[in-house]
Amino acid sequence: EDNAMPQAIPFPQLTPQEVVDFIPHGATVAFSGFSPAGSAKAVPLALADHAKSEHAVGRPYQIRVLTGASSGRCIDEELASALAIAWRAPYQGGKTLRRQINAQQVEYVDMHLSHVPQMAAWGFFGKIDLAVVEATEITADGRVYLTSSIGASPTYLQLADKVIIELNRHHSPRLRELADITVLPPPPHRNPIPIHDPMTRIGVPYAVVDPRKVIGVVATDAGDDVEDFSVAGEDVARIGAHVAQFLLQEWTMGRIPKTFLPLQAGVGNIANALMAALGQCADLPAFMMYSEVFQDALVPLMEQGRLLGASATSLTVTTPMLKRIIDHFDFYASRIVLRPQEISNHPGIIRRLGVISMNTAIEADLYGNVNSSHVYGMDIMNGIGGSGEFTRNGYLSIFMTPSTAKAGKVSAIVPMCPHIDNNEHSVQVVVTEQGLADLRGLGPLQRARVIIENCAHPAYRDYLHGYLAGARTGHIRHDLRRCFELHRNLLETGQMLPV
Amino acid sequence: EDNAMPQAIPFPQLTPQEVVDFIPHGATVAFSGFSPAGSAKAVPLALADHAKSEHAVGRPYQIRVLTGASSGRCIDEELASALAIAWRAPYQGGKTLRRQINAQQVEYVDMHLSHVPQMAAWGFFGKIDLAVVEATEITADGRVYLTSSIGASPTYLQLADKVIIELNRHHSPRLRELADITVLPPPPHRNPIPIHDPMTRIGVPYAVVDPRKVIGVVATDAGDDVEDFSVAGEDVARIGAHVAQFLLQEWTMGRIPKTFLPLQAGVGNIANALMAALGQCADLPAFMMYSEVFQDALVPLMEQGRLLGASATSLTVTTPMLKRIIDHFDFYASRIVLRPQEISNHPGIIRRLGVISMNTAIEADLYGNVNSSHVYGMDIMNGIGGSGEFTRNGYLSIFMTPSTAKAGKVSAIVPMCPHIDNNEHSVQVVVTEQGLADLRGLGPLQRARVIIENCAHPAYRDYLHGYLAGARTGHIRHDLRRCFELHRNLLETGQMLPV
Ligand SMILES: CC(C)(COP(=O)(O)OP(=O)(O)OC[C@H]1O[C@@H](n2cnc3c(N)ncnc32)[C@H](O)[C@@H]1OP(=O)(O)O)[C@@H](O)C(=O)NCCC(=O)NCCS
Ligand SMILES: CC(C)(COP(=O)(O)OP(=O)(O)OC[C@H]1O[C@@H](n2cnc3c(N)ncnc32)[C@H](O)[C@@H]1OP(=O)(O)O)[C@@H](O)C(=O)NCCC(=O)NCCS
Repeated sequence: EDNAMPQAIPFPQLTPQEVVDFIPHGATVAFSGFSPAGSAKAVPLALADHAKSEHAVGRPYQIRVLTGASSGRCIDEELASALAIAWRAPYQGGKTLRRQINAQQVEYVDMHLSHVPQMAAWGFFGKIDLAVVEATEITADGRVYLTSSIGASPTYLQLADKVIIELNRHHSPRLRELADITVLPPPPHRNPIPIHDPMTRIGVPYAVVDPRKVIGVVATDAGDDVEDFSVAGEDVARIGAHVAQFLLQEWTMGRIPKTFLPLQAGVGNIANALMAALGQCADLPAFMMYSEVFQDALVPLMEQGRLLGASATSLTVTTPMLKRIIDHFDFYASRIVLRPQEISNHPGIIRRLGVISMNTAIEADLYGNVNSSHVYGMDIMNGIGGSGEFTRNGYLSIFMTPSTAKAGKVSAIVPMCPHIDNNEHSVQVVVTEQGLADLRGLGPLQRARVIIENCAHPAYRDYLHGYLAGARTGHIRHDLRRCFELHRNLLETGQMLPV
Repeated sequence: EDNAMPQAIPFPQLTPQEVVDFIPHGATVAFSGFSPAGSAKAVPLALADHAKSEHAVGRPYQIRVLTGASSGRCIDEELASALAIAWRAPYQGGKTLRRQINAQQVEYVDMHLSHVPQMAAWGFFGKIDLAVVEATEITADGRVYLTSSIGASPTYLQLADKVIIELNRHHSPRLRELADITVLPPPPHRNPIPIHDPMTRIGVPYAVVDPRKVIGVVATDAGDDVEDFSVAGEDVARIGAHVAQFLLQEWTMGRIPKTFLPLQAGVGNIANALMAALGQCADLPAFMMYSEVFQDALVPLMEQGRLLGASATSLTVTTPMLKRIIDHFDFYASRIVLRPQEISNHPGIIRRLGVISMNTAIEADLYGNVNSSHVYGMDIMNGIGGSGEFTRNGYLSIFMTPSTAKAGKVSAIVPMCPHIDNNEHSVQVVVTEQGLADLRGLGPLQRARVIIENCAHPAYRDYLHGYLAGARTGHIRHDLRRCFELHRNLLETGQMLPV
């Protein structure tokens, strides 16, 4: 920034290695970051090195790690690889950490994201020893200008005994123009949160810290390293087309208000591709989003005027997309708001605005229960994330998944889900490339039939109909001997149906 | 009421039999009632008779039935017995209807209660042909003074094509003083709901109907017929003591604000007994409730000054308790507010106030997933009711159940729940008469151990530890061959453990 006033940094400058001394074995550390966006980078890497040297000389070194949600390479890969994480909450997305969690080497507490700040503030996870928060600036009076995500950082800055700021030169200081930060007061006498539109701003562009707690700042220059999305296959395009057609039909029939409703889309490849598909559906009106993560696909939609405005808690975009936003910042600054996760995912606001939620399932069962987090009900993929807060409170709650995974060896429509993140009481629509099942107002048996006919892959329909026919009668039909037969086959033979 | 002005009733007076003509086979009828309290009585009985005569001459006669929640004898028993219900939502509690649902003779859609009015308003269940609403008065300009529950009646009165009012002389017209009624506007541009305390009033004491839609009024004189609670056994007293001790500890440790927080308690015998136990714990401060149903146990607590005020959607009390309230109405009128279920169960308000939710489970599994609705995952008991809205959004979410049912033949702690109403991501505390498991911040395996040790009945602990030990490693340990072994044993032999 040519026109920026060069300023003395009002806090001691430390190297990442110097910070390590403040973090003893057993400490609870809260890092900034919601997805790779805005996550602490230099300190976790130094901690990883430190852990390795401690382990090399036979000393234990592990910490308890809190973040906003998943985190970048530095925490969920590097720090994890160093075997330095004992406990992790509330969400993760790293391959290495995932492996450790599934091997029961790391305790992982997978939680609804909007509740984390309140729980942390009231000591549900114990004391937070240190917070490490990425920012573009910290002022002498303790204003902290965050980077590409807000997440739970405003709360962690208030709670932690001590604070380190990672001053990241890579990020534009203009990112602060997107931030709308407020920390909710304690219950029970709280005023309503005065947001009545996805773009309403109610706070300030900075988080606040007591400057006496700030031990120092660490200079960094690293990007967020958001992974590129895989190119959407035909299946995903079909899912997008089914959702677009459904929303159009609902809108035309008057079951969605004429002004349309704000959309939320989940994380990952499928959600990213879905948004691209919705944007291309010219018959749908231009829309707003009230969502958790702002992903790549939204950038062109905003430029085309299809996406009018978006509220999120993180700008989880690849480096070229971030550059595109920064290069046209005057355009984006009035169209994107980044909020604390307590607000972006707040059940009351989602309910009030009438958000249409669209999340991705690993699998759905015959009755509309959805598993988004645990393969076989055992192995964590990422976590429930914000899917519960959007699904439970949305005006309409949609789940999507390709009808099969692993080259057809796995059906994403199963008799019973062995883990349930969002249940039949909350899920209203299930979509695969095969079609869409509108479950509203249907009893369980009716739901099962429409899910099999509309969503299951043809190769699995006979099996699923057979399961239903052979099951014990009840409000919900099941056969407790066979309900996990497909999953057991998969575990034992590598595919769900017998060869 | 001696001092009431006798008034001409401004609408045609009909007999219940005359109303039947307005309700053809296949109609969708919305009845007032949230639990037996305030439910329509005369018209459902007449419909039951009509259905029987139609069936006797070989003509089909069945209707689709909406209510606020469960309903009294007249609907879920009598109308059901006449085989006159084809479809039922959003909750039920009758033995006859339950049997029919489990035999798959009635389609039953079991839903989160606060969402029902919005879904109905936007046509998710189709058109509502007629609403039958109990009231103490209707004015010529269409103000409808409801009786002992609000439920979804204000919305049904607005939506239905035609309306019948059951004018119930049995109920005191003073009940209106408890009512605080408002119907939420459509999304997306809604203002926040300005409730910042369980007792805040934001509406008017009456529901509103377009008088041109009112076909007539039917005079009735029947009480609500709320069933008496069974006397609480020792187990339930122990559950109450564990919860009281936990809340006291949390409050003392500063993990509950000094002002304390509003409580919610579920429906049924156990919740009723729990409230009595909490009231007797003299070390706990006097408290408020922000709950769904006001049950018997709260009456003495209010008189003793232990319960300072209560917000609910229904006054589900037995006839003697209702008399006690009416006899001291000046006292109660300033301490009880009855709201529409859209507000009493609103996720945003529950979250804002920091409600401590305490609901009853049929069973809980090793990881904190809870089944409150479906025995064996198949046979409906009642439904999820409001438990999801309170659990998901509560400041603390507690589930309680005796550790065994059916004289010890059934363990309420099982390896995996075959139906999940509230999942491990939302449930924080599980309590049985054996003890309390505080699951906050624990990974799955830690949760499993504390649930077995603190909550399971000693007769089942070895089995459960053995299950865990033999299960496949993963973030969550399970054995998909054995996870429902106990349930299968129960189905096959009448008890969970082999003899
Ligand atoms: C469900 C979720 C994993 C899907 O992610 P995605 O990137 O859109 O989907 P993909 O199809 O690429 O699947 C991801 C992986 O799951 C695997 N998978 C999908 N369905 C599967 C199934 N039924 N059984 C086994 N594996 C499955 C895929 O094969 C893929 O594995 P790979 O990485 O080894 O190739 C992801 O959306 C998620 O973590 N959701 C939970 C959190 C959430 O919903 N947040 C929203 C917040 S608002
Ligand atoms: C779960 C629920 C059924 C418990 O009701 P309760 O009256 O407190 O508990 P009881 O111990 O009397 O149990 C009710 C019945 O369930 C049976 N039961 C309980 N646990 C059981 C188990 N694990 N397996 C089989 N049956 C079980 C009891 O034996 C009893 O059966 P009976 O009527 O034939 O005697 C009831 O709270 C409910 O319907 N909850 C769901 C809705 C809800 O939570 N609403 C709260 C709204 S805010």
